[in-house]
Amino acid sequence: MTALLSPDELEARLRDIGATRYHNLHPFHRRLHSGQCTLGEVQAWALNRYVYQACIPIKDASLIARCDDPALRREWRRRLADHDGTGQAGPGEADGGVARWLKLTDGLGLDREAVISQRYALPATRYAAQAYVQFVRERTLLEAVASSLTELFSPQIIGERVAGMLANYSYVTKETLAYFDKRPPQAKQDSDYALDYCKRHARTAEQQHAVMEALHFKCDVLWTMLDALEHAYGEEGHIPPRAFRPGQFPALPRND
Amino acid sequence: MTALLSPDELEARLRDIGATRYHNLHPFHRRLHSGQCTLGEVQAWALNRYVYQACIPIKDASLIARCDDPALRREWRRRLADHDGTGQAGPGEADGGVARWLKLTDGLGLDREAVISQRYALPATRYAAQAYVQFVRERTLLEAVASSLTELFSPQIIGERVAGMLANYSYVTKETLAYFDKRPPQAKQDSDYALDYCKRHARTAEQQHAVMEALHFKCDVLWTMLDALEHAYGEEGHIPPRAFRPGQFPALPRND
Repeated sequence: MTALLSPDELEARLRDIGATRYHNLHPFHRRLHSGQCTLGEVQAWALNRYVYQACIPIKDASLIARCDDPALRREWRRRLADHDGTGQAGPGEADGGVARWLKLTDGLGLDREAVISQRYALPATRYAAQAYVQFVRERTLLEAVASSLTELFSPQIIGERVAGMLANYSYVTKETLAYFDKRPPQAKQDSDYALDYCKRHARTAEQQHAVMEALHFKCDVLWTMLDALEHAYGEEGHIPPRAFRPGQFPALPRND
Repeated sequence: MTALLSPDELEARLRDIGATRYHNLHPFHRRLHSGQCTLGEVQAWALNRYVYQACIPIKDASLIARCDDPALRREWRRRLADHDGTGQAGPGEADGGVARWLKLTDGLGLDREAVISQRYALPATRYAAQAYVQFVRERTLLEAVASSLTELFSPQIIGERVAGMLANYSYVTKETLAYFDKRPPQAKQDSDYALDYCKRHARTAEQQHAVMEALHFKCDVLWTMLDALEHAYGEEGHIPPRAFRPGQFPALPRND
């Protein structure tokens, strides 16, 4: 256990965890962004990542559901709207983050019903997403808030991803990647709030330690999902039984 | 959805799932049993598998806790005693499956406190074990019982494991593997009961389908843990941050 830190020292420690542990450092992401992934790998990434996207509103509602503070509940409710939308979008327009992620899987030629069913995802992806939801349900409210702090680092990875994927994969279009247009300002607003909350509420060394461990935990969740993708779909390919196999869906875009 | 099966047809289908999906077929187990694992891999296997062993009594108590049938609760209570022991063993004698697993990690030179803390386990192992506990808590009682049916296949894998590990690793002794002496008769008694329960209680095609899916789920849990081990500690070694690194603990047995 470290000594009590000032709020700004705590922030520096949290940013350091991101700099050394965030999944932009994972080999799979480096391959994804630099054009080295096969179409099957890009599809597997999007299909598995859908499981994580789909758990985010569940996770956020779980946090609201255990929170006695109307101000925090109100703030956190915006995340629900960002992910689930308003239901008022025009025809054909994706409303909310989850719907925009489905635009991405559509654009990659994945069957929408198959994606939504989650049955072709790697079991490891499902377990990791579920572990995140459980963490938010079972740990202290401060740890639950802190586990969202990976968003501090997401604008950067999204910038790398959009530029890299557009440049390197002919079948990826700006429209397919519409999800990522909206996320950076949302993530900045969300993570500014969460960081400020943690700096104000982690008042003991134990609480500060718990906040840092919550961020480590969340980095583990994201890293573990990429380890599973890399093992299943990387060079030596060990796809577990019943998981998505490249070529499984009929209407795939051509990989020119 | 298949048509309604006779109880014996259901049993045949369940045994077929084991024959094609059980983790004795995983490349990591083949390497483990045939002497191709390094000491670090054997240690990583035992340290990670401890996380699973430690979750079993939690899982079993979770099943008892949601069960209205005294006969089923009584039957299931024996599993708790098998894993947690009676507390009446003589000094130095391991009492119960969890304690005997620690004899195995002791024998492999792993620091006992480090093993029990679970902090050096792969995140994927923790998520998989947690997914198993959640499954037993949240699904129907019939599915919770059915998820234990991998024990139908464990006497065979244990036979292969004990013979293979004794023959192939000089640092593995019969005493180290004491855990596996007790398990086959316990697993047979447990799985006979659970199989009979499922055959009697799965009376609709939907229920039979759910029973088979529960066994698939459990096979996924076991398979996923080995995928994570293989990815982290296999030839190309991608050990995630903060997980066990071979050589990490001081008092290792020599790998002659």
